[in-house]
Amino acid sequence: MEENRVIDITTGSFEVHKVVSPPHRSTLLKLKNRLKETFFPDDPLRQFKGQTMKQKLILGAQYFFPILEWCPNYGFNMFKSDIVSGLTIASLAIPQGISYAKLANLPPIVGLYSSFVPPLVYAVLGSSRDLAVGPVSIASLVLGSMLREVVSPTKDPILFLQLAFSSTFFAGLFQASLGFLRLGFIIDFLSKATLIGFMAGAAIIVSLQQLKGLLGITNFTKQMAIIPVLSSVFHTINEWSWQTILMGFCFLVFLLLTRHIGMRKPKLFWVSAGAPLLSVIISTLIVFAIKGQNHGISIIGKLHQGLNPPSWNMLHFSGSYLGLVIKTGIVTGILSLTEGIAVGRTFAALKNYQVDGNKEMIAIGLMNMVGSTTSSYVTTGSFSRSAVNHNAGSKTAMSNIVMAVTVMVTLLFLMPLFQYTPNVVLGAIIVTAVIGLIDIPAAFQIWKIDKFDFLVLLCAFFGVIFISVQDGLAIAIGISILKVLMQITRPKTVMLGNIPGTGIYRNVDHYKEAMSVAGFLILSIEAPINFANVTYLKERISRWIQDYEEEGAKKQSGLRVVVLDLSPVSAIDTSGISLFKDLSMALEKKGLEFVLVNPIGEVMEKLQRADETKNLMRPGVLFLTVDEAVGSLSSTVKYQLPEHV
Amino acid sequence: MEENRVIDITTGSFEVHKVVSPPHRSTLLKLKNRLKETFFPDDPLRQFKGQTMKQKLILGAQYFFPILEWCPNYGFNMFKSDIVSGLTIASLAIPQGISYAKLANLPPIVGLYSSFVPPLVYAVLGSSRDLAVGPVSIASLVLGSMLREVVSPTKDPILFLQLAFSSTFFAGLFQASLGFLRLGFIIDFLSKATLIGFMAGAAIIVSLQQLKGLLGITNFTKQMAIIPVLSSVFHTINEWSWQTILMGFCFLVFLLLTRHIGMRKPKLFWVSAGAPLLSVIISTLIVFAIKGQNHGISIIGKLHQGLNPPSWNMLHFSGSYLGLVIKTGIVTGILSLTEGIAVGRTFAALKNYQVDGNKEMIAIGLMNMVGSTTSSYVTTGSFSRSAVNHNAGSKTAMSNIVMAVTVMVTLLFLMPLFQYTPNVVLGAIIVTAVIGLIDIPAAFQIWKIDKFDFLVLLCAFFGVIFISVQDGLAIAIGISILKVLMQITRPKTVMLGNIPGTGIYRNVDHYKEAMSVAGFLILSIEAPINFANVTYLKERISRWIQDYEEEGAKKQSGLRVVVLDLSPVSAIDTSGISLFKDLSMALEKKGLEFVLVNPIGEVMEKLQRADETKNLMRPGVLFLTVDEAVGSLSSTVKYQLPEHV
Repeated sequence: MEENRVIDITTGSFEVHKVVSPPHRSTLLKLKNRLKETFFPDDPLRQFKGQTMKQKLILGAQYFFPILEWCPNYGFNMFKSDIVSGLTIASLAIPQGISYAKLANLPPIVGLYSSFVPPLVYAVLGSSRDLAVGPVSIASLVLGSMLREVVSPTKDPILFLQLAFSSTFFAGLFQASLGFLRLGFIIDFLSKATLIGFMAGAAIIVSLQQLKGLLGITNFTKQMAIIPVLSSVFHTINEWSWQTILMGFCFLVFLLLTRHIGMRKPKLFWVSAGAPLLSVIISTLIVFAIKGQNHGISIIGKLHQGLNPPSWNMLHFSGSYLGLVIKTGIVTGILSLTEGIAVGRTFAALKNYQVDGNKEMIAIGLMNMVGSTTSSYVTTGSFSRSAVNHNAGSKTAMSNIVMAVTVMVTLLFLMPLFQYTPNVVLGAIIVTAVIGLIDIPAAFQIWKIDKFDFLVLLCAFFGVIFISVQDGLAIAIGISILKVLMQITRPKTVMLGNIPGTGIYRNVDHYKEAMSVAGFLILSIEAPINFANVTYLKERISRWIQDYEEEGAKKQSGLRVVVLDLSPVSAIDTSGISLFKDLSMALEKKGLEFVLVNPIGEVMEKLQRADETKNLMRPGVLFLTVDEAVGSLSSTVKYQLPEHV
Repeated sequence: MEENRVIDITTGSFEVHKVVSPPHRSTLLKLKNRLKETFFPDDPLRQFKGQTMKQKLILGAQYFFPILEWCPNYGFNMFKSDIVSGLTIASLAIPQGISYAKLANLPPIVGLYSSFVPPLVYAVLGSSRDLAVGPVSIASLVLGSMLREVVSPTKDPILFLQLAFSSTFFAGLFQASLGFLRLGFIIDFLSKATLIGFMAGAAIIVSLQQLKGLLGITNFTKQMAIIPVLSSVFHTINEWSWQTILMGFCFLVFLLLTRHIGMRKPKLFWVSAGAPLLSVIISTLIVFAIKGQNHGISIIGKLHQGLNPPSWNMLHFSGSYLGLVIKTGIVTGILSLTEGIAVGRTFAALKNYQVDGNKEMIAIGLMNMVGSTTSSYVTTGSFSRSAVNHNAGSKTAMSNIVMAVTVMVTLLFLMPLFQYTPNVVLGAIIVTAVIGLIDIPAAFQIWKIDKFDFLVLLCAFFGVIFISVQDGLAIAIGISILKVLMQITRPKTVMLGNIPGTGIYRNVDHYKEAMSVAGFLILSIEAPINFANVTYLKERISRWIQDYEEEGAKKQSGLRVVVLDLSPVSAIDTSGISLFKDLSMALEKKGLEFVLVNPIGEVMEKLQRADETKNLMRPGVLFLTVDEAVGSLSSTVKYQLPEHV
């Protein structure tokens, strides 16, 4: 394999294009552009361009209140669809609301309050047509567990409730601020892998908590992690109630079966959508008939009739719990925002309409702030109920209004009916709902594509089930960011070779036909160059040169020119500039030529400003393409194409 | 400017090169490669390749004890040079050692102890030939201020000393571990801009602290920030001692003058190098002669004669101060490491020899660990003394041994002479030494090249002088990393156009001659694609398409093909892969073709693994160059070259 092919090229025909500096723009203009890309990448003012004043006012009002957009064209046919979907999600929202409130260690009725006011607020402000708003499992779990670490919900229920509403207020404030300050990209730091691992872990933690209800245990542990919960379950084996277990098992099987049917045949969505309410009704009737509460089956008990009482006087804006509620607010705010935005975007993509992330954040945030003053806790768009809403044919946010009205009727007139509802059926409903959060095919897909992402997933998963919900999340986010930083600290440098018969240069490790050019070491740096990687790049490039020289010594072909292809270098800082200066000096000492290819605008500008001696910017150092650099510098040499070094 | 040029091209001649996937490598091999690039970018085992066992042993011993490398060839001529440079840095090290120990709130003699044992250890283990080892100003300042926040050095001097030695031990342990675990790149996160701002701020803080000595104030504030210090200075105006001020002023002028001479004429380095010792001698004689201690001039007082006492029994490895000493150790460890490594690299580059960063870290770390057991506090290579060492012609680490012996002689026999040395002259020595840390030309250069880096510099500077030394540093590092993360969250996408008459495609904003091709939107994504920027990229690309379509509507030329040039995309994760799937679906709905150009190895592999439907990998979607994509897809169209859109 040592044969060296030698090709003659007519070097006279080489036309070399000049590398120019980009058109001058002032620092202010650059700052403006960068701020625009950072905060307004979606260009929200685009639609206002070239409109009359009146049009602008109408568009502005529609921008802030999307209800004004669809309301004027709202017709009876749409209303029919929204009635159906609204009633469907109400039949889910009522049992789930009660269940999730219990998950958050709150009185069950707070779950219904939270399914009444917030959906009405969202209907006015929200721009998604499919979002079904209300309490969700993960935010409920996190809210409940974070607050319970400090305050006991059984010993001090009023304080606990106050802290829950205060956390909801701060969650809403945080969400609305993110949207208002256009910092929505913060939720982008929750990568898909993190979320999948986190949700699967949370689903397991939530399900384990339900063992209390499903087994009829009365003295259950207050901890959340898997080990203390399981040990608590087996230490209280004498408390297990066979009546409760039997009932729980039956309803769990029924619910899982209907869920399976609903998933296999989307047209039968109403089977799985109606099953929870049906279970509640049947189980309530059974308990009432057999007086189950006397046979070890625990029931919800008496619920207060009537609409949401005001709760602004319960909010804590000072005192020793302020830090706790702000922290809880931020964590639950981010989690519920992530779910709400992801759900909104998913269904918007399916129906091909746009959802403005920052606007949605303001809507969800305001909804929670209003909610916190009307006895509601953290709400957002629920993934499972939104899917049902979509399948049931919802057309606009009117379905949320229909749902809210149904909940209102329930609150006003039907509360006594829930008195005998057994807690065990609520546990079965929660388990059925959260089981869908465990997405094994997606986890497998991630394993297949990117092992490191899968590691992040595992960290989130095991962190959540073995340590705690918040810590698992924090660990996973930390690792994700560390990975990105590592990519920057250790950027790839690859050696390019010529694809014979073309002017194309590609990585010699990737394209086996690419031939390195004798006397030329052509390197491509595939990352922005900055303080974090300058030292590494200096070492790595000198190793490339050493390798080339050792290899060359064997073949008796010496290195003459080092070419750095800067096309992929998207940014540079002052430390990066010094890399070129140092390299240029070091290579000059070795008698090697040093050539830069295709610096992009920003890099070019900074090179110019830093290079007072015009050492890097003189002609013969900068080229527009690798091909032109090689062609121009090898004018006196023949191309020699050895096997790839 | 609305003229549209139309060029016919013979599309039949278009040869299209296949995009292939890179050769298969197992996950294990990839992991091995990545670990190697992360931890062994300098390939330290290279020299052992192909050697005999005996050679390997010798090389190995030389690797761990660089003294074995130069000692065998050490000659008398080298020794002559080292004697001169060693005595020169000793004349600096003695007064500076005493001064810096006072800066760290430690007994002056600890500064001399620290200039005796650590340089001997470094001479055996260190690979730099120019480093002059001993206490330095910034680490002394930070050590003293961090410990003083918790323990008073005047009320509890023994405990304070114990904590200082313990912190030194942990600093050394941390430094050696960084080197041993090959995590040296952590210090790369201190960017040049951060360091310049930080050092200038620290210099001002240190100088302000000297006002106590220079003005003869006895009740000085214990805070470090600029405002409390200045207010303390003016509130104690009645304590100012004119004798002290006069003496301080004279010596300060003298020292600054000699410093100026030494900087202007490097050959006269001995003028500035000898000045501090001369000042100490003269001022001591004056105080002794006029009995200055009775005229308000404070003096060092009696110093203990003899060599370093052992101090391993003073180290705290448990107890309530453990957290404090570990934290102080890490912060001072990083700072002193940064200074030592930077100094070593600077002079190695000047004399054209290699300094292995990780090896140096182990050397400096072990030096501090040994130091902490022999009554020495944090030491490293001092920038100013190393420069003097270099100018005085040092050849090897022997100059450190000469210096250590000189300090030893001083400790054994000359200590009583320092009894009458006035504190004011120590203050003047410190001010003269740290004033060199304020590098205004470098700051100006950074302002010129990169405004954001300058902002980082300002944050470090003002953070240090107004808040605290550690917080200023933390803020600056935080902002540097945030900048890098922002670059990732908001990567650049640029539109490419064809440079007429070539197959070259470049940014149309940068190269005014580049023409966009009618019907083609050619975008280049200039960053790795990952979870943090997928949402942004989706929005940004759809805005490009909208812009193009609006522009095109005016010109009645419709968009047909969207080309994504992936050459600069150096990495991708699972979220990034979904971007292509989503884009492909969305563009298909719009009836647009979607084409990818030149995915590099890793991207190609992940695309293949994720793309089960072969939708993205089918022929006609992947091209090796933009030119081939355009040529191949426009086979039925004429090139239309409008003005750049």
